[in-house]
Amino acid sequence: MRATVMYGAGDVRVETVPDARLVEPTDALVTVTRAAICGSDLWPYKSMEPSEKGRRMGHEFIGVVEDVGADVHTTKAGDIVVAPFVWSDGTCVFCQEGLHTSCLHGGRYGDEGVDGGQGEAVRVPQADGTLVVLPVGKDDALMPSLLTLTDVMATGHHAALAARVGPGKTVAVVGDGAVGLCGVIAARRLGAKDFGATDAVSERGDEAVERVRELTDGFGVHSVLECVGLEQSTVTALSVARPGGAVGRVGVPQAESIPEGEATFFDNVTIAGGPAPARAYIEELLPDVFEGRIEPGRVFDRVANLDGVPDGYRAMNDRDALKVMIDF
Amino acid sequence: MRATVMYGAGDVRVETVPDARLVEPTDALVTVTRAAICGSDLWPYKSMEPSEKGRRMGHEFIGVVEDVGADVHTTKAGDIVVAPFVWSDGTCVFCQEGLHTSCLHGGRYGDEGVDGGQGEAVRVPQADGTLVVLPVGKDDALMPSLLTLTDVMATGHHAALAARVGPGKTVAVVGDGAVGLCGVIAARRLGAKDFGATDAVSERGDEAVERVRELTDGFGVHSVLECVGLEQSTVTALSVARPGGAVGRVGVPQAESIPEGEATFFDNVTIAGGPAPARAYIEELLPDVFEGRIEPGRVFDRVANLDGVPDGYRAMNDRDALKVMIDF
Repeated sequence: MRATVMYGAGDVRVETVPDARLVEPTDALVTVTRAAICGSDLWPYKSMEPSEKGRRMGHEFIGVVEDVGADVHTTKAGDIVVAPFVWSDGTCVFCQEGLHTSCLHGGRYGDEGVDGGQGEAVRVPQADGTLVVLPVGKDDALMPSLLTLTDVMATGHHAALAARVGPGKTVAVVGDGAVGLCGVIAARRLGAKDFGATDAVSERGDEAVERVRELTDGFGVHSVLECVGLEQSTVTALSVARPGGAVGRVGVPQAESIPEGEATFFDNVTIAGGPAPARAYIEELLPDVFEGRIEPGRVFDRVANLDGVPDGYRAMNDRDALKVMIDF
Repeated sequence: MRATVMYGAGDVRVETVPDARLVEPTDALVTVTRAAICGSDLWPYKSMEPSEKGRRMGHEFIGVVEDVGADVHTTKAGDIVVAPFVWSDGTCVFCQEGLHTSCLHGGRYGDEGVDGGQGEAVRVPQADGTLVVLPVGKDDALMPSLLTLTDVMATGHHAALAARVGPGKTVAVVGDGAVGLCGVIAARRLGAKDFGATDAVSERGDEAVERVRELTDGFGVHSVLECVGLEQSTVTALSVARPGGAVGRVGVPQAESIPEGEATFFDNVTIAGGPAPARAYIEELLPDVFEGRIEPGRVFDRVANLDGVPDGYRAMNDRDALKVMIDF
């Protein structure tokens, strides 16, 4: 089969790899129908050391179940399924608490021996705990929005929950990438004040902090969604929080420590978040997608086929595209 | 009148200062009957640059109202009152949200023009929003416990709330000073698993982390109360939190940034806390003190009179005493 492999910074290739196949009795074999390139795929695209073996890429996909192992009971051949960006058993203590990203038997696509999502097929471990069957055809018009539930929309929702967004709260979203836009959708869905993004702040750094304070009587906002992960964006996020407010961080942190440790202490600012347990949120968000209350699929501004994946990486890295969907 | 003044590291004196008096119509004049030395008083005791003018000390006290300004309506001469460690107006947006430490018109005892609590009398600004009248005599046997509501018990309670302690949760308290012990009382009060401190971990650093993990099936604890504020204790606190857990920090941070920024992200560990809004908690904790359900006054292991304050600082700094009560 054909799949995406990264060999180093800027070096993404689509090539023939061994066919995906069932290995464990808890596996499902899924033929991918839609996939996406993630903002987090751009970190290795910018910085990966050259590798002879390469690394299989992709963790956002929807597909058709081709076959399942003997121990898989919740899905069967022919089902259309959506896969969260990590797999999880659904039964361990952390899965039961809704924190599937800390599953004791979970893991990541593209790791040694596991396929990536940007390829023709994927062996999905722990299929019962991982896959969610979708009651739609594989070319349903809602596919772009359903595809965002694998990662970006779930991540925006996680940021909003971690930042304690609720009715009447003022919210700032730091980062205007696909996750940030999903954060706006999530905050509106959870009842943020004024129902949506009312002001765009184009400034960065100290000027951004000043502008947000001007918009909020000098106090800062109740809830901040940190959707970038850089040092500067984290300082900005922590600095625009109001005393007693909360920052939900979902941008993968690029620094070892968290800045503003004293200021956030004296203002009683809560710092929460991390990788989104997408599996916990898919069922919660699905009705809103099906009933048209949210349209996170709008974050895709480019569609490519599998051969177009390398140029999709380039386009996202050059900011020619916000987010690329791969249609197989 | 006589009061405590610090002139530099290790240099605490009791001397004659101008009598406390009403200045603003919102002030109350309080004769101090009990006060305490706080762990946070030891930071300047260790490090304060020599000062000719000196700094008035103390922010934990109970006393008798002598007089009130024209705009004070909730207390009157003769009342026994407890004062939280900062004053607050009780009406601003942050006080209404229960975050009195961020009061728009609040401030700290010992700041320029304001008395400290370790003296014979104190002008209390914003008396209506600050003081809580106690329905007891000034020598009531509960005075030590009531005195802890000014700061340490409120702070332990704040740490426990920030760490999301609740029924069935496992809890670790980092720090065995007076705040840490109050944190144990607070965690037990909020229903922590096994109703109290079941295991004392004498190790520090990596060994402490390992020991806590051994006690918790390798997972770490749901709730961590950080009651020290040093870099090492903060690393320990963040490292013993279980995925999805929370760390409530109340030790005044001695470093500018928060360590373990990546590990806490990938484990979805929440970092919360700050200065405790003691004023918000006094009324909540009072019934438990009056009805004997909590006895936080047990943290006092030494009593001194005003002349004994300098030796009290020395004793706490040398760890000869855990916490000193001043009986006037």
